[in-house]
Amino acid sequence: MKYAVIMAGGSGLRLWPLSRNSRPKQLLKLAGGRSLLQLTWDRIAGLLSAEQIFVCTAKSDAAAVLAELPHLPADNLLCEPVGRDTANAIGFASALLYEQDPDAVIAFLTADHIIEPVAEFRAALDRGYAVATYPGRLVTFGIVPTHAHTGLGYVETGDPLAEDAGARVAVAFREKPEAETAETYLRSGRHLWNSGMFVWRADSVLDRLAAHLPGAHADLIRIAEAWGTDQREATLSSLYPTLPKISIDYAVMEPASRDPGAVVVVPMDVSWLDVGSWPALARTLPLDEDGNAVSATLSALDAGGNVVVSDDPDHLVAAIGVADLIVVHTKDVTLVCRREDAERVKAMAEQVAERFQRRYS
Amino acid sequence: MKYAVIMAGGSGLRLWPLSRNSRPKQLLKLAGGRSLLQLTWDRIAGLLSAEQIFVCTAKSDAAAVLAELPHLPADNLLCEPVGRDTANAIGFASALLYEQDPDAVIAFLTADHIIEPVAEFRAALDRGYAVATYPGRLVTFGIVPTHAHTGLGYVETGDPLAEDAGARVAVAFREKPEAETAETYLRSGRHLWNSGMFVWRADSVLDRLAAHLPGAHADLIRIAEAWGTDQREATLSSLYPTLPKISIDYAVMEPASRDPGAVVVVPMDVSWLDVGSWPALARTLPLDEDGNAVSATLSALDAGGNVVVSDDPDHLVAAIGVADLIVVHTKDVTLVCRREDAERVKAMAEQVAERFQRRYS
Repeated sequence: MKYAVIMAGGSGLRLWPLSRNSRPKQLLKLAGGRSLLQLTWDRIAGLLSAEQIFVCTAKSDAAAVLAELPHLPADNLLCEPVGRDTANAIGFASALLYEQDPDAVIAFLTADHIIEPVAEFRAALDRGYAVATYPGRLVTFGIVPTHAHTGLGYVETGDPLAEDAGARVAVAFREKPEAETAETYLRSGRHLWNSGMFVWRADSVLDRLAAHLPGAHADLIRIAEAWGTDQREATLSSLYPTLPKISIDYAVMEPASRDPGAVVVVPMDVSWLDVGSWPALARTLPLDEDGNAVSATLSALDAGGNVVVSDDPDHLVAAIGVADLIVVHTKDVTLVCRREDAERVKAMAEQVAERFQRRYS
Repeated sequence: MKYAVIMAGGSGLRLWPLSRNSRPKQLLKLAGGRSLLQLTWDRIAGLLSAEQIFVCTAKSDAAAVLAELPHLPADNLLCEPVGRDTANAIGFASALLYEQDPDAVIAFLTADHIIEPVAEFRAALDRGYAVATYPGRLVTFGIVPTHAHTGLGYVETGDPLAEDAGARVAVAFREKPEAETAETYLRSGRHLWNSGMFVWRADSVLDRLAAHLPGAHADLIRIAEAWGTDQREATLSSLYPTLPKISIDYAVMEPASRDPGAVVVVPMDVSWLDVGSWPALARTLPLDEDGNAVSATLSALDAGGNVVVSDDPDHLVAAIGVADLIVVHTKDVTLVCRREDAERVKAMAEQVAERFQRRYS
């Protein structure tokens, strides 16, 4: 059977102070009133039934996720006691689903982006499920690039598959490129953005983990075997924190891509909008007549080009003469940051966590 | 007997959003934890007993003033139903005090400035009380200027008094000057800043009001006559709002200064720090190592030269890369303003009052 696992484990420090440990970015309401997590659910709810959809998240976010997704069966919420990066989150979900369905084909989907049009996303996902039934094959989704992005990894593709010319063999994974290299990638037509979304049979990825990360694989199998017993929590909480922190790209995709034909790429020709930073989130907000991207009650005097966000519509932000600032108001923290310094928000969040013993984290 | 009336009626819109209709600037706690009103009380409490000290304020501020000044007798709180500028506030207090003590000599003191050293202030006030006993004489305090201020009125002085060479005859009141004129004033040694603080016999100022503002004078006398009766509130609330809005400078001081010798100036050689705007208030705040004037919990990354104020020490302000801003956080309003636009805060406060039906006023 087909399944989808939504991976909702990121911290979203670049969206601090709106994003917190207790309210990660996937749960933030966007301009349309739906969170990234809800939008992700909406995208796949047309393809799969609620029983086929799982969410993997931090234990501390469990209640918030269930509140956001009322149709998600409680048993389909997979809670990591601590975050151990994507290789383990994926291995954890794969081992559990393999236990209950040895023929499980699982899509792993991120909740970090706004993806449109949804029909194009669903078509690619459908194609992915079909292509992934081939035993041992790992399928990754590649976003058709719109510009020479230097902040993303790329996957280089080769020949189309014989069975489906809409999918292609993966030749290599490429790190975030320099600007010139990114231009070359863009012009090549063969390089796609590495989306961090995958689909494969549970046994395909478990076999790869067994080969490349045998210790973690053994622990994940033990956790899965204990899942239906009274040893579930004890096993999970004793073994999971000991797993090595490693991403699925490093642990599985890169080594596997060296086996010709083992990794397949399904292109996804969508608008793939990262909302993981303030300037990125600002692109989802309405602009006022002075070019302020606003999700707040704002009164401006000669203030333009700012990003102004408050989680309280009753709180007034008054801006006089300022331009190109990010102003974020929350109940206990106000952030004022130059737009061009947006990448330093994470450093600020870390500095504040240390200085104030996580009080504002 | 000697009296002092603290005039605490200003709105302080330039300190919005910290200063509100319900919390005017005189009641704001400054760096030392005392408000301007309390500091004003402290300055005169050594010279006069509590029974001799009165406060004239807006009716809406009565409770707040009494809470700030626990030693102020409740009967000594004079509440204006509406603000009608200084000529009426002074006439009101003078008429009431004249009713109970026809020999009353009253100092009218503002609560808009930090004045130091206090000993120098008290010495000038003492001299003022002595000089003001001369019937018909109006005494004003002139601050010895430290620079060619263009934002203040000046009083030009002439000969010293025969009885006290430390006081001088006032020759003329001068409007806020252009920069060149201000330099001339500074060099002359004869021009002092018009402090807006006065001392005189109650009958001296009432006679002047009768001469220059007869209608208002008659109404103020009627209010004073009704004060000890059950008609107090009815008379006050029916007559006071009809008084013409006019300052004591225009109504009394300027015309009186044309009578040679009628107006006397007592110089006050003090540091006279206006805290009526954010840049001015900032000068009373401690500076951090990056030159931020801070009365808040601040976490800064390459942010310097800012004014950062919050009325809630548990609220964190995080600043990244910004310079020369004014950031003021209150429970329901956040202000972000370029320092050089500080004079526009009042316009913002007015714009917000109109747009939001005084919700944030």
